[in-house]
Parts: sequence; structure tokens; C-alpha cells
Amino acid sequence: MIMSIFSYLLPKKQTSASVAKERLQIIVARERSTRGGPDYLPQLQEELLQVVRKYVPVDQDAVNIQLDRESGCEILELNITLPEG
Amino acid sequence: MIMSIFSYLLPKKQTSASVAKERLQIIVARERSTRGGPDYLPQLQEELLQVVRKYVPVDQDAVNIQLDRESGCEILELNITLPEG
Repeated sequence: MIMSIFSYLLPKKQTSASVAKERLQIIVARERSTRGGPDYLPQLQEELLQVVRKYVPVDQDAVNIQLDRESGCEILELNITLPEG
Repeated sequence: MIMSIFSYLLPKKQTSASVAKERLQIIVARERSTRGGPDYLPQLQEELLQVVRKYVPVDQDAVNIQLDRESGCEILELNITLPEG
């Protein structure tokens, strides 16, 4: 009894610090043996986020996006931190 | 002049054998510190493919899908082979 009241009264900060987080990482790698064709990864990135938002709430500032181009390869990386449902 | 006609007349087989392929790989990793919440990766997989199809033609048999579950982590992998546009 005393313990449960005690835990209820614990500082909020400590509780929120231990909130479980869910992470979602989406990586799209496009490998091309020749240059050419439209560069659709930037638009794809927006649409992928829209799809993910159908399933889980995504804050704009919880998304970290990187788009790297190397010879013959483009890599789109989306890192999303979600609050555990 | 002679060279350009010659290359035009090269056997089709040889040309198609060297057709450049484009590969698209999509990896979705969902990391959960606690079990729970709906398992949306299978539906997400279908919708991701629909989004990709807006940009590039994807044959059903050109898609290789794997869904792995490990403790606290689910990994969805889509490997798509596309004919170079």
C-alpha cells in the first residue's frame, strides 16, 4: 500500500525518462548499373512517411532523414522514433 | 556509318543479355523495447509496394519479401528487381 502510493508520487521526470520507445527504421537502396531514369527517391520518401502515418503517429521532429548518393547507388534512410502505444 | 549499322544489326539476344537491371531494396526495421501494439508490418509491406509501383513498374515475381522476427525486433525486407527504364 505504502509502496504503491510512493511509486505514484515519484517525480514525473523519472517516469518519463523510462518510457519505452519504439523505433522504426526504413532504408531504401536503389542500385543502378547505368545512370539514368528519374530520381524518385525524394518523392518516395514523402509517400513512405504518409504510409507509416496510417499505422502509427509520427511527429515531424521525430523523423531523421538521410539521402546518400554513391556511384551507382542511392540510399534513403528514415529513422523514426515513436512513443510506445 | 558502317559501325552504327553493324551495331544495330547485332543479334537481339546479345543485347537483351546485357540489359542493365535496377535493384531496389527496402528494409523496415521495427525495434520495440516492450512487446505490444499491433503488428502492422505485413500491411505496411503491401502499401510500400503500392507506393513504389507509382514510380516504377514492378512485376509480382520480381519481388522477394522476407519478414524476420527476433526478440524485440522485426525486420521486413523487400528486394525488387526492375528493368532499367
